[in-house]
Amino acid sequence: MQLPSQLLENAVSEFAKLPGIGKKTALRLVLHLLKQEVDVVQNFGETIAKMRKEIKFCQRCNNISDDNLCTICKNTAGRNQQLICVVENIRDVIAIESTQQFNGTYHVLGGIISPLDGIGPDQLNIETLLERIVKEETTEVLFALNPNIQGDTTIYYIQRKLGQTKCKVTTIARGISFGGELEFADEMTLARSIANRLPIQQYVS
Amino acid sequence: MQLPSQLLENAVSEFAKLPGIGKKTALRLVLHLLKQEVDVVQNFGETIAKMRKEIKFCQRCNNISDDNLCTICKNTAGRNQQLICVVENIRDVIAIESTQQFNGTYHVLGGIISPLDGIGPDQLNIETLLERIVKEETTEVLFALNPNIQGDTTIYYIQRKLGQTKCKVTTIARGISFGGELEFADEMTLARSIANRLPIQQYVS
Repeated sequence: MQLPSQLLENAVSEFAKLPGIGKKTALRLVLHLLKQEVDVVQNFGETIAKMRKEIKFCQRCNNISDDNLCTICKNTAGRNQQLICVVENIRDVIAIESTQQFNGTYHVLGGIISPLDGIGPDQLNIETLLERIVKEETTEVLFALNPNIQGDTTIYYIQRKLGQTKCKVTTIARGISFGGELEFADEMTLARSIANRLPIQQYVS
Repeated sequence: MQLPSQLLENAVSEFAKLPGIGKKTALRLVLHLLKQEVDVVQNFGETIAKMRKEIKFCQRCNNISDDNLCTICKNTAGRNQQLICVVENIRDVIAIESTQQFNGTYHVLGGIISPLDGIGPDQLNIETLLERIVKEETTEVLFALNPNIQGDTTIYYIQRKLGQTKCKVTTIARGISFGGELEFADEMTLARSIANRLPIQQYVS
């Protein structure tokens, strides 16, 4: 694709670097911006650059934050600070927050133990999690990691490290998705959902 | 979707203003940028803003340009300056250029006559086209507009205005797409492709 202007070409290739955006989509986005006022596009560029430059990570849980502590860690009145939900990344925090079902705090690992990808415990925020649990006298650690081998390995590793502490360790339930169909569920999921069956009262509440 | 930072929220809503990008995709793009170096993101923002601020439109054909005249209009040696291809927008110029089959110049109308959308001839670059044809002693005007009622109306309008000039007026061929299947073609297209049938020699060349 030959473009008639170098400025256009540069803008298109910047957009095309983003994940899931090819050159054709990038061109469509750039031509859209070209139709907007200069101020609007200026503001677009500045907002993105400012975000990257000024955003901080919460010193306690590594969540994204405008400050040294994120809004969840600061909210000592409304949220149980002794319950920590361990997640892989910030997207998981946003997903769980949008359910409005969790009133504890988070700890973002920044990844998951995966020897095949060369990611070991040292590259993750595991040490700070262990320190937090001791220092803050955490009562429960809830693991909300993706249900795969890497996730299970990470849980196993951290649980072993926690051996001496008295805090409760839980994981999110695994089973048949709401709206899912039994006949299409994989054997592993179905087997787990039978092994971990719940009394009806608990299920309904 | 509740985001943990105002800076993040702003960046996401800037991306979500782009066509075809929802809030979830916007978040994915922003989190991707958040993982890049500050310089990279700074450059992204500046490139986009600079593009909008500094880009020009060719004074002759309204194509995008880095200068007062676009590269196609400047190329008097390599391109037939008396052949004008009339297109709706810049995307069409890029599409035709990528075929490498056209060696004339363009004229970008900036839209198409569409009374239902409130777009009349006065809002388009038609007057400048008519002036160009007279002044430059254009020998052929080739209409490459989308084959629909608005496209045909626009051709009809311009052709009537051209009444007194001697320049040849043509339109791109309409027929069955290459690789298309006859049985799935609509009646209108099939009928036109029969009415405008070509001698085999001409088709092969």
